[in-house]
Amino acid sequence: MRDEQLSELGQQLRVDSVRAAAAAGSGHPTSSMSAADLMAVLLARHLRYDFGHPGHPGNDHLVFSKGHASPLLYALYKAAGAIGDEELLTFRALGSRLEGHPTPRLPWVDVATGSLGQGLPVGVGLAHAAARLDRVPSRVWVLCGDSELAEGSVWEAFEHAGYERLDNLTAVVDVNRLGQRGPTRHEWDLAAYARRAHAFGWHTVEIDGHDCAAIDRAYGEALSTSGQPTAILARTRKGRGVAAVEDREGHHGKPVPDADAAVAELGGVRDLRVSVHAPPRVSPAWPPPARPVVLPRYDVGDTVATRNAYGQALAALGAARGDVVALDGEVADSTRAESFATEHPDRYVECYIAEQQMVAAAVGLQARGWVPYAATFAAFLTRAHDFVRMAAVSSANLNLVGSHAGVAIGEDGPSQMGLEDLAAFRAVHGSTVLYPCDAHQTARLTAAMADRSGVRYLRTSRGGTPVIYGPDERFPIGGSKLPRASDEDRVTVVAAGVTVHEAIAAADRLAAEGVRVRVVDLYSVKPVDAETLRAAADQTGCLITVEDHHPEGGLGDAVLDAFTDGRPVPRLVRLAVRTMPASATPAEQLREAGIDADAIAAAARTLVGVAA
Amino acid sequence: MRDEQLSELGQQLRVDSVRAAAAAGSGHPTSSMSAADLMAVLLARHLRYDFGHPGHPGNDHLVFSKGHASPLLYALYKAAGAIGDEELLTFRALGSRLEGHPTPRLPWVDVATGSLGQGLPVGVGLAHAAARLDRVPSRVWVLCGDSELAEGSVWEAFEHAGYERLDNLTAVVDVNRLGQRGPTRHEWDLAAYARRAHAFGWHTVEIDGHDCAAIDRAYGEALSTSGQPTAILARTRKGRGVAAVEDREGHHGKPVPDADAAVAELGGVRDLRVSVHAPPRVSPAWPPPARPVVLPRYDVGDTVATRNAYGQALAALGAARGDVVALDGEVADSTRAESFATEHPDRYVECYIAEQQMVAAAVGLQARGWVPYAATFAAFLTRAHDFVRMAAVSSANLNLVGSHAGVAIGEDGPSQMGLEDLAAFRAVHGSTVLYPCDAHQTARLTAAMADRSGVRYLRTSRGGTPVIYGPDERFPIGGSKLPRASDEDRVTVVAAGVTVHEAIAAADRLAAEGVRVRVVDLYSVKPVDAETLRAAADQTGCLITVEDHHPEGGLGDAVLDAFTDGRPVPRLVRLAVRTMPASATPAEQLREAGIDADAIAAAARTLVGVAA
Repeated sequence: MRDEQLSELGQQLRVDSVRAAAAAGSGHPTSSMSAADLMAVLLARHLRYDFGHPGHPGNDHLVFSKGHASPLLYALYKAAGAIGDEELLTFRALGSRLEGHPTPRLPWVDVATGSLGQGLPVGVGLAHAAARLDRVPSRVWVLCGDSELAEGSVWEAFEHAGYERLDNLTAVVDVNRLGQRGPTRHEWDLAAYARRAHAFGWHTVEIDGHDCAAIDRAYGEALSTSGQPTAILARTRKGRGVAAVEDREGHHGKPVPDADAAVAELGGVRDLRVSVHAPPRVSPAWPPPARPVVLPRYDVGDTVATRNAYGQALAALGAARGDVVALDGEVADSTRAESFATEHPDRYVECYIAEQQMVAAAVGLQARGWVPYAATFAAFLTRAHDFVRMAAVSSANLNLVGSHAGVAIGEDGPSQMGLEDLAAFRAVHGSTVLYPCDAHQTARLTAAMADRSGVRYLRTSRGGTPVIYGPDERFPIGGSKLPRASDEDRVTVVAAGVTVHEAIAAADRLAAEGVRVRVVDLYSVKPVDAETLRAAADQTGCLITVEDHHPEGGLGDAVLDAFTDGRPVPRLVRLAVRTMPASATPAEQLREAGIDADAIAAAARTLVGVAA
Repeated sequence: MRDEQLSELGQQLRVDSVRAAAAAGSGHPTSSMSAADLMAVLLARHLRYDFGHPGHPGNDHLVFSKGHASPLLYALYKAAGAIGDEELLTFRALGSRLEGHPTPRLPWVDVATGSLGQGLPVGVGLAHAAARLDRVPSRVWVLCGDSELAEGSVWEAFEHAGYERLDNLTAVVDVNRLGQRGPTRHEWDLAAYARRAHAFGWHTVEIDGHDCAAIDRAYGEALSTSGQPTAILARTRKGRGVAAVEDREGHHGKPVPDADAAVAELGGVRDLRVSVHAPPRVSPAWPPPARPVVLPRYDVGDTVATRNAYGQALAALGAARGDVVALDGEVADSTRAESFATEHPDRYVECYIAEQQMVAAAVGLQARGWVPYAATFAAFLTRAHDFVRMAAVSSANLNLVGSHAGVAIGEDGPSQMGLEDLAAFRAVHGSTVLYPCDAHQTARLTAAMADRSGVRYLRTSRGGTPVIYGPDERFPIGGSKLPRASDEDRVTVVAAGVTVHEAIAAADRLAAEGVRVRVVDLYSVKPVDAETLRAAADQTGCLITVEDHHPEGGLGDAVLDAFTDGRPVPRLVRLAVRTMPASATPAEQLREAGIDADAIAAAARTLVGVAA
């Protein structure tokens, strides 16, 4: 596209942003208008993308971290010929792919945005995948707002990308001075942002974001900068081109007051069509076809921590499948992801203590077809809860592993205990939540989760537990096991993880007293094995749930969910961690929390009406 | 304390750290030993603290952001005479106050740490409270690890404190080069950290962290720096003083191999006692006694968004109570905290889009006796989930408000919808979860939550809902309301927030069909009004729960919790958001999710066995 057409294209993008928001009656046209010239030059001159083939491995990636500028993104798609004007005007309507904030319901959107500060960290994952795994020259362009640079996750991304020298990543910061509520901290002080980005190892360029020639040169500078990612800091005006809203407060997130007048002021509707550069032909370093997984085997009766089984199984999975990538938050010696890191160093991503960046990187990796497993302590995955939530909006397929579940970790105390994780992960749309109790179960689930869609969460334990299942036992997701069951069972104890072993001990003790107890090992917390639970309820009349988790949102609630179809619900008692733990040994912790074999046995005796 | 004694004190702190961890059989002595000289000089020369009066308003604050260095903290307490040697050796034992990571069970600990990257953001809150609210010369000293500088939350704190020129805040960074798993990103590159901190507006000092004279000078420089917070970047050696572990990998988080030999190598047990400087006499600018709150009044039948009622009630509460402080994540125009900001600008803290820092600041404020209300979109509070979790470990009293609940927000789409928040907040130990449906209820609950202990969460709605309760109606926490109830009710619908109005519409429609339906307005989701729910179950036989939230962990689970005492549970159907929403109008969203009046009426008809 010729120089003089670039600003015309920018005006077209503004006009279409105004029109889309006007048609919707809502949206963020002013946040789109500030970045229109930046995106016009990118689309016309530098982006390499085949809109007819969004999965092309040589495609660049364009991530709108400021997802509220979706009208601009959709206007770009129209200019590229990917959508028509009619579809543009379905913006935000029921059934439209053009949502208020972009999601992968559109094939050209890699990941959902709209929670600010996420696009750049995800861009880091995309850039890592392209440069280090696929080894293709795809570039990642991330449009950031200035307001969102207040998010710490953005600085995790600056740190990660700067340290890793991801020179295929460019952040384009639309410094339009105005946030949602009013001026940003640094307004138009581009140097303030440049100092920060530069300190984190980035190359920086400061420009007038409405000067198309300057924008073009800045992209060229980004392309020619090697060994460093580049941040283009562009001074822009929010609502640029329409005097009623330009650089004025109070116009965030709403259509411009008079859309027809605004379109006229912008020079009217245009229909410039951009021939976007085709992606280069590439031969990605894609992994060889998967071989059968040879999972680790243990001796029944041995004591093995499920976190150890996770690490060993993941390393084995990595040997069988070249598409598996492990990430960790600088605790791989604890989560045991280290086994994988040692055997497959090229597919291990050390994220240091930056859990948001870790999950975001995993989201970026899966968008390029890799199968990420990201691990840290279960407690610290809470740090990335918003990223997990957004991963579900992205329909991302990723594996998250939280170690050091519950009070059973012992002396380290509550800051290190995952006690809210089941609740958080169960509430994520489309999630799978697994909580194994022995090494073989862990190994099987570690392998099986790879092929599941959505966010899959595996909860592992710090301390050793006995291996109770054989190496060839199967553990389908959505299933359960019955380590103790008979026709004479008078009560059912539903447990998972460490409490399975407590439940077995309680059942064996009660059996000696003449009371038969069924034990359900509910390793698949979501989806839950409703059939087995209902059968147990029908046959034994009452249930006890016991979990190393706070009482809300975890195993107990998962069990109850099996009984909310309008049919009668069994009598139920639930044992869970109802106090704030302190330091103590693992056994003391289970006792103090009332989730050990003694507590289970006492609850069972009460339910069936026998004395101890 | 004389110069030559300072390094002796440092050795004592190392010895006591080694001894405490040896007695416990676990803990982090090597992470304590690197920072021992830094803390020795602070305690002996610069900290102003009355250990006999931890609530003294003139006290400095010492926050161990690297909470795993707890042996060092407890060794400091011993050196200050606050605890004895016998108690020191109870480290990590059941019943001891000396937990694996510090918590406010010890009166000198303001906030729990142990989830890295939280101490500095909380320190920002403490510094703000001291300098801007209490207006006393208390200083805040935060001991940070080098590894935790990878956390984005730390950079939110650097940004906030630098921008706000909190010169009473000093970060002491123990750059010991080794993280948990191995070397940190920047190892001993102090300049890398200095560039970053400097770019964010901080004064920086680089020192040898084992040179007591240099440490002393650095603190002096921090004290004499005005208009900027100071970061002291100290090069140290992990495990300093014990050759077997000093600067060696593989010794994180475990006792030194031979404690007796280590103590001998460190020069043996000492019993130096430090006379810590007394805090200055201060007259904090504490607020006047509270006056009665004059809450806003609305006309029954008017349409008012609960977020509006929140803003107006908070402003009214702020007029009555001088101890109330509002915080917001740059969306005060949306959460309506703006009403408070306008009326009480001195007690409004703009946190920009940094939700972790916002919650951390609230935790810091409450530690100095202020009553914080921190608000953003419910969806974006997920960003701070780990901070909320840790606030509970801190026994912090704070109010969090999440606006834009559920699919009812309409066109903006799922990235902006709080659909997991009830699950996350219910699972927090000791939390209160409130979800009002009308303006008067919101106003009352906004005022009432101030006096509750623990983490209190209020969920508000974007769109207007009818005012259905009078201005003098009471809404006790733990209670509920029955907007529709009779002796002939055949089914009970339990709802909250926006679904209360859908339930009422359904009940009125079914009443016209001859089917009486009870409606429970369960505005107190936690604690839950079990008595009313059980009575409704007994009287009507079956329940429908309906919530604008994913099905896991929210209202439905809260209702079931009332029936887990071993007594029979009613038949129950739950309606919740089971799909991933896209853009649509609010009414379309409720319909698509199956939580509108039509869906409720259909479920009720099925349960009671009548045709539509």
